Amino acid sequence: MTTNRQFVLARRPEGKPVDDDFDLVEADVPEAGPREVLVRTRYLSVDPYMRGRMRDEESYAEPWAVGDVLQGGVVGEVVESNHPDFEAGDTVTGNLRWADYAVADGDELVGIETGGVSDSAALGVLGMPGRTAYFGVTDVLDPDPGDTVVVSAAAGAVGSVVGQIAALNGCRVVGIAGSDEKVAHLKDDLGFDAGINYAEADVAEALGDAAPDGVDGYFDNVGGPITDAVFEHLNVRASVAVCGQIALYNEEGVPTGPRKLHTLVEKRARVEGLLVGDYAPRFAEATERLVGWVQSGDIAFRETVVDGLENAPDAFVGLFEGENVGKQVVRVESEFDA
Amino acid sequence: MTTNRQFVLARRPEGKPVDDDFDLVEADVPEAGPREVLVRTRYLSVDPYMRGRMRDEESYAEPWAVGDVLQGGVVGEVVESNHPDFEAGDTVTGNLRWADYAVADGDELVGIETGGVSDSAALGVLGMPGRTAYFGVTDVLDPDPGDTVVVSAAAGAVGSVVGQIAALNGCRVVGIAGSDEKVAHLKDDLGFDAGINYAEADVAEALGDAAPDGVDGYFDNVGGPITDAVFEHLNVRASVAVCGQIALYNEEGVPTGPRKLHTLVEKRARVEGLLVGDYAPRFAEATERLVGWVQSGDIAFRETVVDGLENAPDAFVGLFEGENVGKQVVRVESEFDA
Repeated sequence: MTTNRQFVLARRPEGKPVDDDFDLVEADVPEAGPREVLVRTRYLSVDPYMRGRMRDEESYAEPWAVGDVLQGGVVGEVVESNHPDFEAGDTVTGNLRWADYAVADGDELVGIETGGVSDSAALGVLGMPGRTAYFGVTDVLDPDPGDTVVVSAAAGAVGSVVGQIAALNGCRVVGIAGSDEKVAHLKDDLGFDAGINYAEADVAEALGDAAPDGVDGYFDNVGGPITDAVFEHLNVRASVAVCGQIALYNEEGVPTGPRKLHTLVEKRARVEGLLVGDYAPRFAEATERLVGWVQSGDIAFRETVVDGLENAPDAFVGLFEGENVGKQVVRVESEFDA
Repeated sequence: MTTNRQFVLARRPEGKPVDDDFDLVEADVPEAGPREVLVRTRYLSVDPYMRGRMRDEESYAEPWAVGDVLQGGVVGEVVESNHPDFEAGDTVTGNLRWADYAVADGDELVGIETGGVSDSAALGVLGMPGRTAYFGVTDVLDPDPGDTVVVSAAAGAVGSVVGQIAALNGCRVVGIAGSDEKVAHLKDDLGFDAGINYAEADVAEALGDAAPDGVDGYFDNVGGPITDAVFEHLNVRASVAVCGQIALYNEEGVPTGPRKLHTLVEKRARVEGLLVGDYAPRFAEATERLVGWVQSGDIAFRETVVDGLENAPDAFVGLFEGENVGKQVVRVESEFDA
């Protein structure tokens, strides 16, 4: 192992990212310093929030500079460890790089806790997306049994878990997704009560049937017109957890739409932004619950796997085209694997 | 007393209401039936929310039909009572009519509790607007000492009380109002720490000076671009109480503006709609606190009084032109008073 492929941000995307926004460059395999660990990437996570870091704007995650190596959630194998918690051969997860290899402070890595489920699940149902769903439902929406909970991007990594946790809470669950195939997956595989294909249906109208008693909780992954439509159906004292706004991430300038604050007065509704990192002190609780639910079969999950680090940009861009069902991961095989 | 002047909705306003939207008609003075009370109006409250009832749209308050007598908060004198709780000469308050006289179920009236403050205060600082401010600050914003709280329409009936209660909680209080005179009133008479005249200043820019540590709580009475500007300054975990959207009430069609849900994710902020009626079981608590603060001088208040029932539409329309400082009331002298 002498060289390391890694993606850098070649330029800031305008609108939807394209291949030329990313450069695959070769560098030396880094060396682990004191308390550092060298990790070989096995799975890389691509997530919609990364689009925000490609903008030159301050937000909850620091923007990348042009030329920076892109970062992301990784499951990998320890190659060399100068940290007492890890040794070569361990499987770990952490926020590493779109690269074959990366070094990290060992304190920033954790062993994966997947209870025998696939390792890559540590990036999805048992990782950041699963925890986001858990805290979003449990803490922000906090639905009562019998409530109707609607989730957008329902077939995605977060939405699919949101709906299943809400169902475990005794809720009627309605998922909004972008194809008939995804809607069938929600109902047939994930136990959703109803699904709406926003690419075909008028969402506001379809919700009249799918949520005949109105919407008590809405977990928003998309924003834009789909969210506008859901707001028309909010019940008095409804709760809205805002997790993502993927429909807007590629817009240049400030997206506009109907003003909705008056609806909140009419409905005495609550809208709250959700960032999973705020719940770090409770990650162990979430992981334990999620592992239990997956092991018992109460939560099913699917992954969409793209092979090859070189295809990471395609996998990332595919998120904005709805190409993934469940968690989108990139399986990375080092060129030196053989 | 043989006739009763009363305002009916002549037609639904288009945009800002005008005189021809209202008709002053004469009718017989109504008679009190069993358990009913005949009340002569002394003060009539005009409030921005009434604009919503003039639309043909369902909301928290039922829309008026064209031809309906307009309703509103009234302080009046009991002329005749068939209810055991009241007798002629009592001063009462309730939701009555834009009229010289009205009958009401005695169960829907209450004696005024103003602790020696002016009777009309039962429509303002000690009535619905004061209670709205109380629950909005205490329950929805729930600020900590040292927090910065911003309120829009700060010189109005609700906003002026919001700011003073927040100050009593140890907050830095910034008011946004529509004239230099109002801003001076906020700072000189009501103890606000800073004020912004939105008619002259760029609100987003001015907030940089007025709220240098950002905004922890925002009480929104206006909506629209002023609220957009405040959102730019929200701190992490900020709270927003949405009470009114007066900047939008006269718009035809659906008002549009920049989408703000992503800001809520960035800031993990909470936005909640507020309707004072939901707090009815706790009105006594609010009144007791408010009366105490007014008696001790901790809360100052001002009223803008228009004389004559016939001027009620002008007083109402004036709300949308920022003509009032503090609570806008109409003093009604029956033509039969003499």
